[in-house]
Amino acid sequence: MARSTTAALVVIGNEILSGKVEDTNSQFLAKQLRAAGVSLERILVIPDEIDIIAASVRMFSADYDLVFTSGGVGPTHDDVTIAGVAAALQREVVRHPELEKGLREFFGSEVTDSKLRFADVVDGTELVEDGNLRFPTFLVENIYILPGIPEIFREKVSAIRGRFTTDPFYLRIVYVNEQETAIADSLHRTLDAFPELLLGSYPKLKNPEYKVRLTLESKDPEYLEKALGQLLELLPPGAVVRQE
Amino acid sequence: MARSTTAALVVIGNEILSGKVEDTNSQFLAKQLRAAGVSLERILVIPDEIDIIAASVRMFSADYDLVFTSGGVGPTHDDVTIAGVAAALQREVVRHPELEKGLREFFGSEVTDSKLRFADVVDGTELVEDGNLRFPTFLVENIYILPGIPEIFREKVSAIRGRFTTDPFYLRIVYVNEQETAIADSLHRTLDAFPELLLGSYPKLKNPEYKVRLTLESKDPEYLEKALGQLLELLPPGAVVRQE
Repeated sequence: MARSTTAALVVIGNEILSGKVEDTNSQFLAKQLRAAGVSLERILVIPDEIDIIAASVRMFSADYDLVFTSGGVGPTHDDVTIAGVAAALQREVVRHPELEKGLREFFGSEVTDSKLRFADVVDGTELVEDGNLRFPTFLVENIYILPGIPEIFREKVSAIRGRFTTDPFYLRIVYVNEQETAIADSLHRTLDAFPELLLGSYPKLKNPEYKVRLTLESKDPEYLEKALGQLLELLPPGAVVRQE
Repeated sequence: MARSTTAALVVIGNEILSGKVEDTNSQFLAKQLRAAGVSLERILVIPDEIDIIAASVRMFSADYDLVFTSGGVGPTHDDVTIAGVAAALQREVVRHPELEKGLREFFGSEVTDSKLRFADVVDGTELVEDGNLRFPTFLVENIYILPGIPEIFREKVSAIRGRFTTDPFYLRIVYVNEQETAIADSLHRTLDAFPELLLGSYPKLKNPEYKVRLTLESKDPEYLEKALGQLLELLPPGAVVRQE
């Protein structure tokens, strides 16, 4: 089977690490990537510090096809993502002439140094434009730099998703009314026969309908159906409550 | 000021990376650690693979005072956290005699190999008992191994929290009715005068009451009040809507 496009997400956020703000961007991106057939391999949440951003982005940029950053883009002291990505790639931060022109036109006499910081990019950044975006998305090498504000993060991810969409993952779900201990052997044997299957087993406590939710995934729909058939044969009689 | 106890969290979860399940354990732990005065420095989400768990846990165990793992504990094929932590520390997985005895007593003639897997621990594991827990928490070196099921994760974190509670962080919140661009300079200058202050700036879109939420934190309440005074002096007149 073909190798999936791989991705990693770096969340830059003291506010997440200190529990003050819930990180909803990670799950949103995870779902969008899954739907686009991209395999998200790592999510890393780090503090707003240039050196840490640089080291994390450098490592992920080398190890995965795509890297996304969330947060740390803006005019205040804790917005150091651009500087961090620049350090990761050993490049300069430069003021983008086209963006600066746009900001000066937009703000007129109200323009300030803080506002012009939105025109600072890593040298060599591609501006990804999309009809639905108010402001372009920054792409440098394989790194998409996204803002942390959830509404804007979602808008940008949705706008750029088409650029990396590939073959989808096919998913089957089986709900089982047995404890994991009673079905563990059936799962093992299914994987022995279908080693490429992505098989998940998620117990649900105090649920009247089912005890475990099994997820089967593959990019090859035929392989998936064969693996599903094997699993259904191996599960204890009467165990399956429902399938999706 | 005294150095904080540091911590890192490793979330073992294909279900999180693929967007199928929302990770609520991270924010719960982040809040609990903050309240306990512990500084959470990293959250890393990785796939259910022994080698990746081993490498991540080994790195974090060396770099931080405390490491927590979430998920991958149980009887099925994807429950490989114990094996991963064992590999991280170059130790064996052993069946804990006391736990095995308890499981055999509890299950009687219903006991199976799968059920006895709950007695498998990394060699040298300390069983952290607590009156409120149905099952002990595993601690090996500086690594707490926690299950991914949110109800049990929360129960265990709450039960063990007293073990690492230290001086708390003191927090002040200032709500401001100005854009970040208008207050960035005030924030910079406050930090120049109070470099140890933990200062966060979080814009809120389309909010009628305020535009930015500023958080000020320190373990030294006197330092915090002085820094707050400085910030309030520097902010534009009339900018502050409310304080907490």
